[in-house]
Parts: sequence; C-alpha cells; structure tokens
Amino acid sequence: MNAKTKPDAAATGDANPMWGGRFAAGPDSLMTEINASIGFDKRLYAHDIAGSRAHCSMLVAQGIVTSEDGAAILAGLDRIEGEIERGEFAFDAALEDIHMNIEARLDEIVGEAAGRLHTARSRNDQVATDLRLWLRDEIDRLDGGLKALQAALIDQAERHAATVMPGLTHLQAAQPVTFGHHLMAYVEMFGRDRGRLADARGRLNECPLGAAALAGTSFPIDREATARALGFDRPCANSMDAVSDRDFVVEFLAAAALAAVHLSRLAEELVMWASAQFGFVRLSDAFTSGSSIMPQKRNPDAAELVRGKTGRVIGAFVALAVTLKGLALAYGKDMQEDKEPLFDAVDNLALSIAATAGMVGDMEADAAAMRAAAEAGYATATDLADWLVRRLDLPFRDAHHATGRIVRLAEERGATLAELPLEALREVEPGIDESVYEVLAVERSVASRASLGGTAPERVREAVAAARERFL
Amino acid sequence: MNAKTKPDAAATGDANPMWGGRFAAGPDSLMTEINASIGFDKRLYAHDIAGSRAHCSMLVAQGIVTSEDGAAILAGLDRIEGEIERGEFAFDAALEDIHMNIEARLDEIVGEAAGRLHTARSRNDQVATDLRLWLRDEIDRLDGGLKALQAALIDQAERHAATVMPGLTHLQAAQPVTFGHHLMAYVEMFGRDRGRLADARGRLNECPLGAAALAGTSFPIDREATARALGFDRPCANSMDAVSDRDFVVEFLAAAALAAVHLSRLAEELVMWASAQFGFVRLSDAFTSGSSIMPQKRNPDAAELVRGKTGRVIGAFVALAVTLKGLALAYGKDMQEDKEPLFDAVDNLALSIAATAGMVGDMEADAAAMRAAAEAGYATATDLADWLVRRLDLPFRDAHHATGRIVRLAEERGATLAELPLEALREVEPGIDESVYEVLAVERSVASRASLGGTAPERVREAVAAARERFL
Amino acid sequence: MNAKTKPDAAATGDANPMWGGRFAAGPDSLMTEINASIGFDKRLYAHDIAGSRAHCSMLVAQGIVTSEDGAAILAGLDRIEGEIERGEFAFDAALEDIHMNIEARLDEIVGEAAGRLHTARSRNDQVATDLRLWLRDEIDRLDGGLKALQAALIDQAERHAATVMPGLTHLQAAQPVTFGHHLMAYVEMFGRDRGRLADARGRLNECPLGAAALAGTSFPIDREATARALGFDRPCANSMDAVSDRDFVVEFLAAAALAAVHLSRLAEELVMWASAQFGFVRLSDAFTSGSSIMPQKRNPDAAELVRGKTGRVIGAFVALAVTLKGLALAYGKDMQEDKEPLFDAVDNLALSIAATAGMVGDMEADAAAMRAAAEAGYATATDLADWLVRRLDLPFRDAHHATGRIVRLAEERGATLAELPLEALREVEPGIDESVYEVLAVERSVASRASLGGTAPERVREAVAAARERFL
Amino acid sequence: MNAKTKPDAAATGDANPMWGGRFAAGPDSLMTEINASIGFDKRLYAHDIAGSRAHCSMLVAQGIVTSEDGAAILAGLDRIEGEIERGEFAFDAALEDIHMNIEARLDEIVGEAAGRLHTARSRNDQVATDLRLWLRDEIDRLDGGLKALQAALIDQAERHAATVMPGLTHLQAAQPVTFGHHLMAYVEMFGRDRGRLADARGRLNECPLGAAALAGTSFPIDREATARALGFDRPCANSMDAVSDRDFVVEFLAAAALAAVHLSRLAEELVMWASAQFGFVRLSDAFTSGSSIMPQKRNPDAAELVRGKTGRVIGAFVALAVTLKGLALAYGKDMQEDKEPLFDAVDNLALSIAATAGMVGDMEADAAAMRAAAEAGYATATDLADWLVRRLDLPFRDAHHATGRIVRLAEERGATLAELPLEALREVEPGIDESVYEVLAVERSVASRASLGGTAPERVREAVAAARERFL
Repeated sequence: MNAKTKPDAAATGDANPMWGGRFAAGPDSLMTEINASIGFDKRLYAHDIAGSRAHCSMLVAQGIVTSEDGAAILAGLDRIEGEIERGEFAFDAALEDIHMNIEARLDEIVGEAAGRLHTARSRNDQVATDLRLWLRDEIDRLDGGLKALQAALIDQAERHAATVMPGLTHLQAAQPVTFGHHLMAYVEMFGRDRGRLADARGRLNECPLGAAALAGTSFPIDREATARALGFDRPCANSMDAVSDRDFVVEFLAAAALAAVHLSRLAEELVMWASAQFGFVRLSDAFTSGSSIMPQKRNPDAAELVRGKTGRVIGAFVALAVTLKGLALAYGKDMQEDKEPLFDAVDNLALSIAATAGMVGDMEADAAAMRAAAEAGYATATDLADWLVRRLDLPFRDAHHATGRIVRLAEERGATLAELPLEALREVEPGIDESVYEVLAVERSVASRASLGGTAPERVREAVAAARERFL
Repeated sequence: MNAKTKPDAAATGDANPMWGGRFAAGPDSLMTEINASIGFDKRLYAHDIAGSRAHCSMLVAQGIVTSEDGAAILAGLDRIEGEIERGEFAFDAALEDIHMNIEARLDEIVGEAAGRLHTARSRNDQVATDLRLWLRDEIDRLDGGLKALQAALIDQAERHAATVMPGLTHLQAAQPVTFGHHLMAYVEMFGRDRGRLADARGRLNECPLGAAALAGTSFPIDREATARALGFDRPCANSMDAVSDRDFVVEFLAAAALAAVHLSRLAEELVMWASAQFGFVRLSDAFTSGSSIMPQKRNPDAAELVRGKTGRVIGAFVALAVTLKGLALAYGKDMQEDKEPLFDAVDNLALSIAATAGMVGDMEADAAAMRAAAEAGYATATDLADWLVRRLDLPFRDAHHATGRIVRLAEERGATLAELPLEALREVEPGIDESVYEVLAVERSVASRASLGGTAPERVREAVAAARERFL
Repeated sequence: MNAKTKPDAAATGDANPMWGGRFAAGPDSLMTEINASIGFDKRLYAHDIAGSRAHCSMLVAQGIVTSEDGAAILAGLDRIEGEIERGEFAFDAALEDIHMNIEARLDEIVGEAAGRLHTARSRNDQVATDLRLWLRDEIDRLDGGLKALQAALIDQAERHAATVMPGLTHLQAAQPVTFGHHLMAYVEMFGRDRGRLADARGRLNECPLGAAALAGTSFPIDREATARALGFDRPCANSMDAVSDRDFVVEFLAAAALAAVHLSRLAEELVMWASAQFGFVRLSDAFTSGSSIMPQKRNPDAAELVRGKTGRVIGAFVALAVTLKGLALAYGKDMQEDKEPLFDAVDNLALSIAATAGMVGDMEADAAAMRAAAEAGYATATDLADWLVRRLDLPFRDAHHATGRIVRLAEERGATLAELPLEALREVEPGIDESVYEVLAVERSVASRASLGGTAPERVREAVAAARERFL
Repeated sequence: MNAKTKPDAAATGDANPMWGGRFAAGPDSLMTEINASIGFDKRLYAHDIAGSRAHCSMLVAQGIVTSEDGAAILAGLDRIEGEIERGEFAFDAALEDIHMNIEARLDEIVGEAAGRLHTARSRNDQVATDLRLWLRDEIDRLDGGLKALQAALIDQAERHAATVMPGLTHLQAAQPVTFGHHLMAYVEMFGRDRGRLADARGRLNECPLGAAALAGTSFPIDREATARALGFDRPCANSMDAVSDRDFVVEFLAAAALAAVHLSRLAEELVMWASAQFGFVRLSDAFTSGSSIMPQKRNPDAAELVRGKTGRVIGAFVALAVTLKGLALAYGKDMQEDKEPLFDAVDNLALSIAATAGMVGDMEADAAAMRAAAEAGYATATDLADWLVRRLDLPFRDAHHATGRIVRLAEERGATLAELPLEALREVEPGIDESVYEVLAVERSVASRASLGGTAPERVREAVAAARERFL
C-alpha cells in the first residue's frame, strides 16, 4: 500500500517529498523518472474525480465523514475538474500520479477535510476503479465506431448486392460472388468484434472501490452504493483480486487485436483492389495521398496505416500479458505498466476504425472491371460440373473430369466458358445441350447460390436487412 | 476451392495423385511435406465423421441423395469410425488431410455412392465445421478442469478462512490477510476465465456447413437442419465469412492465455511459498521431484512447468493472430496453420489446470509460519493509524506520522507492534491507551476488515459459500 | 540439481521410481505427463551421446575415471547410439528425459562403471550442452538452406536482369524496375538473415559442461578439453549463467522470425504475382495445387503455407521470451519449455526455406505481362520530371506540376506516356522536344538508374556477380 | 514515392496542401490524424539534418548542385537546427513529417535553391537513413548503459567474492555459492546483450541514401561519399531493399527484448531478496518507495517497474514483426508504424538499465542472512555425497542413498549438516570419520568448487578481473 497524502516536506524536514519521515535520502532522479506516471495517467482525471465523488458521497451517507466536510470535498473536486479542463491545473511529476496530484490540490483548496477522502480507500483500489471506468467509456466509443463501420459496409453491400466479382480462394478465381456478399462477410466479423467488446465490458463492470490497499477496510462502508453510483453492476467479490488483476485490460486488448486483424484483412483487400492490376475499387481523395510528379498514383496510405497498426495492437496484448505473467499477489508496481500500451491500443484502434469507415463509405466500385475479372477466371466451372451431375446424372468424378477438359479448351481458345460453342462442349461430353449456357453466365451462377447465407443477390439483400436489424 | 475426390491415377494416367488431369508434374516431395496436414488433423476424425453424418442425413431428407445411398454412406462412416478407433485405419499423407483420408476410404467401402456425400459441401466449410465442433468439446473439458481447480481452491479456502498470513504488496508485508482470502482471489480469476471460455463457446457455435467453397450452393439444402443436428445455435450468416475467418480460434487462445497467466501467478506463489525462506506451504510428493543426494529438496517442478507453459499459450495466440493479419478473403491455405498452435495450447493448458488442481488439493499450509511472518512484518501498522484517527481524532497526516515513528521504534527494539509496552507507544503519542492492543494483534486486524469482499474470516466463509453457489 | 541415476526401485522399496528413498507417495500420473520430456527431447540423443563421450574421455585423461571404466562407457554409448538409430531403443517416460533414458540403459550394459560418467556433471549442464550442440547443427543446416534460396534468386535475377516490371510503392506503379533487381532485394535480406544466424551461432558456441548443477565442481576437470572436443570456442565463463540462461535460443528464434518475415514478404508477392490480375509469374505444378473441377486454378498453396507459418516462428520467440521473463536463477524447470517451440520453429523454417527455394527456382516470369504493366502505370513520370529539370532547367516545383498535367492527359486519352504526341506534350510545356521520348520508354528509364545499387541492368548484373562472390 | 516539396496552396489553388493539383477534395481530417508522423518523428530532426548536409555536400562535389546553392542550403540547415534546438521551430502536422517540415522551412529561408536538395533523393531513402543514424546513436547510448551496469555488478561481485549464499535451483537450496559468483552470471548475460547490440549496429550500418524512391537515380551521385560522410560502412547494395526493409529495427528490438528479459530476472531476484522472508539485500532509499503509515515497507518499485517494462519491449518486437509480415515491396506506408514502438522500447530499456545500475550499485547485501540461509538448506549435501565417493569409494548410488538418510536425520533433529555429531553420521555410514566436517561447512564447499567458471572465491576474483578486461 502506498501513502495517500502529500506530505509537508518543509514541516517534517523529510528529504523525500512524499513518503514521510523514514527515508534518509531523496529518491534518485532516475527513480522519479521511472516511477512517475502522471505523464500518461492524467488522462484518467475525469474518472478519478468521478470515483472520488462517489466515494465521498458514500462516506457522508454512512456517517463516516460529516456533511460539511463532504460538501467541501465535492466543491473542491468540481473546482479541480474545471481547472484541468481549462488547462489551468499544474501537474507535478514529484507527486507521481493523477491521484496524488488531485489530492494535493484538494488539500490546498479544502484544507484538512481533504484528508477525510482517504478514509477506507487506497491508491490501489482507486487506480483499478479509474481504469475500469475509463475503459468502459472507451469500449462504448469503439463500439460506436464499429457500428458506423458496419453501417458503411451495409450501405455499400446493399448498393452492390448484385455486382458480380470473382470470388477468390488462394487469390485465384473460384466462383463468382457479389461485391455486396463479400462486404457482408466483414459485417459479420465486426459484429463478433462488437460482441467481444460487449462481453469484456460486462465482465469488467465490477467495482474495486472498498478493496482499499488489498484487504478491505474496517470502516462501515457501503460498497453497493459506490458501485451503483458509478454504474457498475456490482462490487468486486474479493478485495485482493480487485487490486491485483488486470485481466480486464488483457481481455480488452485481445478483442482489440482481433478487430485490428479484421481491419487489416479489409485494408489488404482495399490496397489490392485499388491497384492498377485489380482496379476493382477507387478510393477517395480523402483517404489516399498522391505525388505531384506522379499524379497517377493514388497511394492508399490510410489503408496501409490501418494494416500496419495491427502490429501495435497485438503487441499491446503481448506487452500486458508478459507483464502479468508470474506476478505474485497483491498489487505490484509492475501493474503501472498497464496504461501506456492500453492507451496506445485504444487510440490506434479508434483511429483505424474511423479511417476504415471513411474509406468504405467513400470508395467507388468498378462493377465492369469486377465482372470482367469474374468472366476471365472461368469462375463458373463448378456450376458446369454441378450441371453435368444434375442434368446428365454423371458420377461426380466424371463430371469433374469433363469440366476440367472444357476449361482447358477455353483457356486454349482464349474464350470464357460462356463463349465456347456448343460443338466444342459436346466434343468433351456429348450429352451437353443448349441449356448449359444458363449456368455458364456469372450472373446466373451467382443467382443460383441461393442457399441460406449464400451469395445470391436476394440472399444478400435479406442479409442486409437482417444486419440492419441486428447491428444498427 | 479444393478438389473433393480421390482421383483414380491409374485410370487417368495423371502424375498427380489427387488433382486430376492438368498437372504435368507430380507435386514435389517438399510440397507433400509442407502441404499435408493429416499428421495433426487426424485428431479431428470424430468431428469430421459427425459432420458428414449430419450432412448426409440432411441430403437424404431434402431428397438430394437417395435413402439407399444415404444408408450406405452412414454405414460406411460407422465402419471407418470403428477402424480409426481400433487403430486399424491406414492414414496416407498423399491424401493430405483427414477429410480426404476418410473420403477415400468411404469410396473403397461404398463405391460410387460415396461421391454423393460431396454434394453441396467443400473442404472449406467442412474443416471450419470440424474445428468448431472439436474446440467446443475442448472448451467444455477445460471448463470442467477449471471448475475442479476452483473446487480445490474453495476447499482450501474454507479450511483456512481464518489462517492469518501477511498480505503482501510489492512482496512486502502490507496488512494481514487470511490464506483463505488469498486463495479466493484465484477463484474469482478462474471464474472470469470460465466466463471468457463460455463467451467464446457461444460465439463460435454457428455452423459453417453449407457455405461450400465460399459462395453457398445451388442445391436445396437445409442449413438449419445440419446446424441443429450438430448442436449449433444457428448457421453462419455469411458463406464467405464462414470459410475465411478463424477469429473463434484466436478468441479462444486469448482466453486460454489469460487462464495461463492466472495459473502462472499462482504457480509463482506456490514456488515461493514452498521455498525454505517462506515456508508457507508444503507441496505433496506427487507434484514435486527430489534428488537422491539432496533429499531436502522438494523441487516444485509441476508448478514451474505450469508457470513456464504460459509462454507457449501466449505464443499460440500471437502465432495465429500473425497468420491472419492481412489475409485476403476467402479461404487461403495459410489458415491450415491454425491447428497445431491450437492443439498445443489446448493440451498444455489442460495439463496445467489439472496439475494445479492437484497441487492445490494436496498442499499443506504451515499456519504457524504464516502467522509468524504476519507478526514480523508490522502488518497492523495501518490498523494503528486508523485507530489513532478514529479514537483520538488525529488528522490523517499526524496519525500516519505517529504510526511511522512507532513502527521504527519496534524495528529498533526487534519487537512486534503488539509487543511494544504502552509507555513506549505513549512516548510517541500520549493519547494512546490500553485499548490500542485490540487492533495490534493480527487476528484482530483481520477480523476488523469486514467490509464486503474483505478478508475477515466471516466474509471469507460467506465468499466460500457464495462461490460454491456461483461456480460449482 | 536433479538426481543422476536410475534407482533400483525393487531394491530400495521406494514408491518413486527415480528420486530415491524419501518420497512417500509415487508421482501422480499427471506429474509424469507434465514432467516427462522424453517425448520430444529424444531428438537430442546424438548430441547427448557426443557430450557424454567428450566428458568421459576428459575424465579418463584427468585420471578421474580409469581407462577401463572409460572404455566400457564409450563402448556402451556406441551400442546405445546404434540401438537408437536402428529404432531398437525402448524409451521410457518414467525415466523423464533423454539423459536418464541413456544413462539407465548404460547402467544395464556397463554396470556400476556407468555411474562414473555422472562424476562432475549434472543434468543441468548436460541439457544446456546438448541443446547448444543440436542448435549449432541446425543453424548450419538452415544456413545451407538460405544459401540455396539465394542461389535460386540470383539465378533468376541474372536471367531477368533486364526484364522490366513496374516498381510498386503502396502497390501503385512508381518507377520501372527490373525483375532481377527486385529479386536481388531478397538476396540482401536473406544475406542479413544468414548473418544473424552466424552471429547467434558464434555467441552460443561456448561449452556449459563442467558447470555441473550450478556451482562448478570440486573434481579436477579440464573444461577446455571438453569444449575443444565438442567444437566449442571456449567454456562458458560462469557456471550459474551456463545452466540458467537460454538467451541463445531466444536470439536464434529472433533471427528465425526475421527470416520467416522475409519469406512471408516474398510469399505474398508470389501469391499476388501468380494471380490472374497480376499474371507476372507462373508457379510450377510442383508447388501449386489444383482442383479437378476448376483446373484453371493453380493454388499457390506452398507460398501461402510459407506465409502462414511466419506466425508460428514469431510465436515461438514470444513463447520462450515469456518463459524466461522474471525467472530467478539458477535452473528452474520452466526452462524445459524451451525445446518444443524451438523444434517447431526450426522444422517449419527449414521447410519454408526449402519450399521457397523450390518455388523460386521453378517459377516462370511473364516478361510481356510485366512490361505491359510498367507501361500502363505511367511509371516514367519521374523520368519526365527529371528531364524537365535537367534539360529545360525548370524549378522542381514547376517540373512536377507540368509532369502531373501530362500524366493526367495520358490518362484521359488512354495512352502511355510514350504514346502521347509531341504537340500534346508541348501544350503543357512548350520547351519539350523530341528528345523527351528517350526517357519515356520504360527500358530507357530503367537503364538510366545506374547509380550504385540502382535498377539499371548493368548494375543488376554486377550485383549478381558480387552476390555470388559474397554469398555462394 | 511521395512528393518532395511543400506546395504553395495559394498559388496553385489546390484543395490539398501538399500533393499538387490533381486531388479534388482535401484530405479528411481523419487522414491528417492517421497520416501525420510529425508528432513522433520530430525526434529524428538532428539525424535528418545530418543526412541532408551529407547529401548536399555530395551534390556539390559531383557538380549536380552549384557551390552557391549548396552553401545556401547548408546555412539554412544550420539555422533550422538552431531553431529546433532552441524550441523556436513551428512544427506543422499538415506537413506530415519531419522531412517535410524541415524542407518547407528551408524553402522559406533559402528560396528556390532549397528545391535542389531534393535532387536524387526521396523521402523513402531519407527516412531509412535517418532511422539508421538515430538507432546507431541509441545503440551506443544503450551500450554505455549496459557497461555501467556491468561495472556496478562487477564491483559488488568483487566485494562479495567470498560471501556465501544458498545457490538455488527451483528456488530450493542446491549448493552454496558466493553472492559475487551469482552477480557475475548477470555480467555474462549483459555482455552477450552488448554483443547482440554490437552485431545489430554493424549490420544496420549501411547507407540507404541514393536509393531514392526505390530504383536508384539517374543523377551521377556518389553513394560512397555520403555513406562515408555519415559514418556508414558502405552504401546499401540494393535500392529496393534499402527502402523496403526494417529488419534492422526488428533485430534491435529482439536484442532489446533479451536485455529486458535479463533485467527482469535480476529485478525478480532483487524484489525477492529484499523481501522480509529472504532478507538478503537492502535496496537504497533512492530506488524504493515507502508509506508514511507503514514505514517498515521499502517497496522495491524501481525493480518492479523494470520487471514490468519487459512486456513492452517484447511487445514492440511483436508489433514490428507483425507490421512487416506479408508486406509486398517496395515502400508501404505500413512502415511508418516502425517508429513509435522503437522509440518506446529504446526509452524504456534505457531507463530500466539505468535504474538497475543504480539499484545494484546502491544495494547492501546482508552476508549473515545469506550465510544462515545456506547453512539451513543442507546445501552441502552434494559435497557429502562426493566425499563418500572419493574417500570411501562408495558407488554413486550408495553414496547418494546414505547422503539422503543423513539429511533426513538432520531435518528431524533441526540441525545443520555440520552440527550433526559423528556418531549420528556413522549410524548411517560407519566409514565416515572426523574429516567429513571439512566438506560440510558452506565455506569449504564453496572453496572446493574451483573448476573453471566455478563459484570458488579465487575463481570469482579471477572472473572479476577478466570481466574488467573484457567488458569495461
């Protein structure tokens, strides 16, 4: 447990500005540098103040602190919040962290009553509370971002529910699909990402306040009240667990890493689709950069940055998992290392989501280029094989073999399947008749795949409607 | 999309044993080595057969396959399952994977009808289905293991609800806690781990069958039926997503990594507690190893292995996240790399959980050593400070300062706080009277921390009862 | 330190098969499962025997063991090596690891003299020695593989020293380069990978033998002799370091991870180049797979697997770094977790290197497709801008601006830059004359970039020659 | 390739402040946020200016730029450097990065001549050069830090060359060692870390300048000259490799991660040694923090932070490895993500090294506590067994068995081995005589382990002297 008050160095004659009378030497300047977290944890100020308000009100309600002192403290907290928001607050690294900075200022404003706020609380449960509150808000913000991204994808999917493109496996044309269907795959992925964030939010929504340093407190506090006041579902059940674990951060980072991986896959496709070789998509000026000497270039910088940032989010997961590995209970200072990777991951993920939503919303698909690529790739070969099985009752193996020979024929002639004359088809399999052309066209192929979740335009439109219901 | 049948090389004269007539040269032996997954994916055989049964029955029910063919296929699958279980099945690396091995054997047993099973299915949706079914079972097994571990912890916690030990922060004595309270912190952690596994299970429980290669199928299949038959909550909503993503594996690995991190923390403590210096716990013969020449050593090998294995589980998460990063849709062979890290993580986590449950169940706590350590650590200093505030109404700062001076006094005299005579205490703070000794004893300190979730024995006993209700 | 002899359980009546008389209960079966490493460390048998031979010979030379006993031990080791190589050796999990398995068998063959081999040695220094010897051999093998891959790249680079392709940045045409130049970039990367492996090999090449359990030994051993006999540069300087660290494994895994990352980049390009959209390269039948029904597909499975395997190698680095994090000295059983990730990384990297060398050697470049893509991409725009600066002495900014307008003109007309008529060029910049066409052709552009390390064919041919000298 | 000049938006009427005339819409504000790197890459300013100086001088020497223009540019660069160092420079996010910010300012100062500096250079080779120069300096700084840490360890090792402590394996007493010997193990580890940094420095020390955008340049530049001027060993051999790879960053991060892992192990031991239970070491006030109410606590915050920061450094390695995975050549904007993880890793590693050097230098060992722990742990059991083999010629197995019984005896009697009376020893093994007590004392045990690299004080003193020679 750490000290909770700003010591009066002048009064006590202590070398150490904070830890009271026992330390002969002041902390090494290196120690200040490695120890202070105020440089980054000031970001938690609003949640720190919110937690203090709730704690103060509970102390008053329980009769542990007088109404007068409580009112003074609350007024002081209001004032401090204003000072920070207006940029007037002087943060001091010697006071280590946001909690001490605020408390020291409260002491200046309120005087001795400020000390009452420390009752039945420690920095250990305080910082755990702050971080949960902060992350809860960020999860809500990220969820909103993913929802907007889904909306952009759904809108494009609706627009392109019937736009045919080659469905690639191994980056080779496999079967025609629609662009809308392809985009809806990402709607599903980001939907699961939102589900993971929601689960993480639910699991972290327990209140550490009242765990104090590690063991709970002997003051007659009301943990249900503070939990309720701060929007938590319940108090943490075990005080040592409450101050010793950061699994909620790691769980969030795992969900963030998966979202980043999904974004990287879409980004990879956007970069590829925007290349001259594919030419499937044109990204807007707003999300590309150019070159004054090579204006033909539309560098998909934003997509590349989104793809590249995946590394940092995965790295943040690793960072914190490593930090927690093999850490004995209860609170260890190692845990102070939880914040910077988390902040970095949240910021970069939020930016990546927003940039992707922007790119998706702005992009223009080149339906003609997509269709041509689908035609060129013999993507309806499977349809032909299925036709041979169904119409001519060929065994699978023979149907596959005949299809293979027909595709090779098309390749040799430089024709699409639909362009091969009937006699050429009959050379391979005499039973084939005119009706085969119904399945060789890419639009017919796509329309036929009408199984649940399939690429048929009607299915895609249903999926679009359902997704609006499920996600937006 | 990949081929679905074992070609008859003799009949076609193909050099390639599997891919039909177009490849001039056979696959390089390196290709066989890098490409074949049968060495590890044979482990999915039971789930592959289960998936085939469900698919076959659905095809019959939909009139796509005749009852006769369906019956023959089902009988063939039964026979193959028996052969594999009895170790009589000859796996062949040239057939690449478990799906092809089973299909080739089905072809031998059933003949041409075997081919009907391929209708409206591809290896792409098949392997995705197999892996979800397998992982679902493993999650259930791991959940059972974690539950048993919680039970072991809860039993020890009940036994030691009032056993006082030093509560450490920074590995320094902070406040006394009970051993039971400390153990219950892990019950909470493993409870959240189970929650994460359950969430992962729920999210993966959608059926890819019917997605076929990537686009769905033109056959009038009933995806709801196969999903139901296999215990899935519903079919996957998008066929491309169904075959292209493995986020369910990554999500599981994240939950597994967190459980491993929690295990590593308990393992660290067990190793430390079992050291001569701590002497808090004696691990059983069953989970330690010794040395014939140094029998005094009880090497906590199992705990160290549990701690060490954390690396592999985190590594598995990284492995698959990296594999998926930047991967274009739909199926890419990269995804074949999902299985070995997953299998390794599941096996090592299951073993770690079981070994930890065994160690916890068997360990013997040395209550006297724990109590002595709590006494020696001046762990009731906080209680003293609180007493000064409450009884003498000292301002916080003064109370802290007086406490610090008293602790230094005790250190100088080599005494515990409770052993200091009253006059010594009064030298520092004249207002102190006899009643202060009520809070200086570690048992009193522990009993006083009776806030919700605190370490007071009554609270721990309540927590034990509640945990049995919540978790067992 | 661990026991060094196989106890005779029958004789001693011990429940525990190995640790002598003190353990009341036998090890839990879970303990056997988690503790035994023989399942994977048997792979070290040859290096374990080599280490034992060197140790034995030194003990004889120092007069610590008699020549007779020494001869018997060496003969016994020969016999065991033969048994293992012929598959006749019965490995026993109850004997935990390869060291104990060999020692127990030596005991059977040689009798009491076998025990002399334990003098001044422990499993701790033994396993560290084995692993270094094994890894040293594997590094040599991987170096050979990378050299062969470089040779394949260099041969293709020579063939295509003047084959023009678009040089892409952001997957957008930037400037024309030659295919040979592009391939030579990878020769540099793999050259650095070899450098890293060589450095790792140099650093690990110190001999732990003689460190014994952790403290050294009181026997008058000759550590220089054993180090020399085993090809080490010197003995490890500190006995505790020798048995406690595995940084040589982590360093190797980092080098392996970088090589895997480089392979993944080449694999990504191969997959992309082999797509219908790019069409730059045709991979051979040997390293692609097909589909009997879609014979147009040449799935670049090997390249995808190489790309996908990157995850596992990075994951292995993470795994071992995590395992070592925060581990107190000296030997802890956690370190047994070093082998499986290492073995997995070595195997997968070796396979990836070999497959890539095969693919590169076999691939056929489509020079016409590459050239057409370079033309289509206005890749000589920079050359035009440079020409305007040099010939017309335009300020950079004006030259860039004029170039941009000309490219837009070409885009509007659907022409390459070289196809634009002179008057069109003069409309933008009146000073342009016929000689500008000399820089607008892609071959001229490429030839002009003759700076050291540039893409001019003559430079590429020089680089090819130099690389043969430096690397092969 | 990216534009190299700051466009004059007012003059051209472009919406986009930088990319010239073709973009209809300005970049989205999101794009500015995700795209701009000036927030972090301003840190490269000195190296960017150094690179520009070398490039400018070479251009003048080669007659590509006039002496007058060259002189103006150099003077402008001097002025800019001064402005930045004095904090007078106005960084502008709209100018994206440090290169553009400096170029734009140079343009203001020098006018049109500033544009000449762009000749034969691109941001792609420029940023690669800057980053190598910066990292080279940081490696030198880190090497100095590690050297200081080694010096602190060596000094303490010399002081404690004969201070006996228990040598622990599995955190159980194995054999006595000296504290100096233990510390010298870390000197070896950090020595290898320095070796890895030196290797990384050597490998990165090639100059990308002149690679231009990706293909080299048609200007008659002298790459040898710029390489020499900037202290590089040679120019990069391949222009595409020069701008496309960041393996030098990943290699550095791997070396950094290993150093961090080594630091984490020492930090773990410091935390443990400083605990009341061990009491081996007292950390100074300068590197611990306390509590005003619990002054007995000396929280080893610095050690915990060092241990915790390991995660971030490993995470940075992962981050960049992931970013590079599967990235097609040549430059992609993904690579902009290399800097922040690198900066974070460098800063945190440097701080961790310095703090550890401080802690090690300041710490006080409690020799009595260490010796007592060595005595209590029966750590000379191995010495006893060896004595039985050597003096009584017992077979190993029998010697081990007898030793085991004697240790159990000591345990039962609560005595150290040296405290057992002779008759008690003889009950177990009648051949034992008085001379056995010579090996039972921990000092004798330590002194006897005089093999090369062993723990005998004379060996430790030799190792100290050798280490001063090798490392300082």
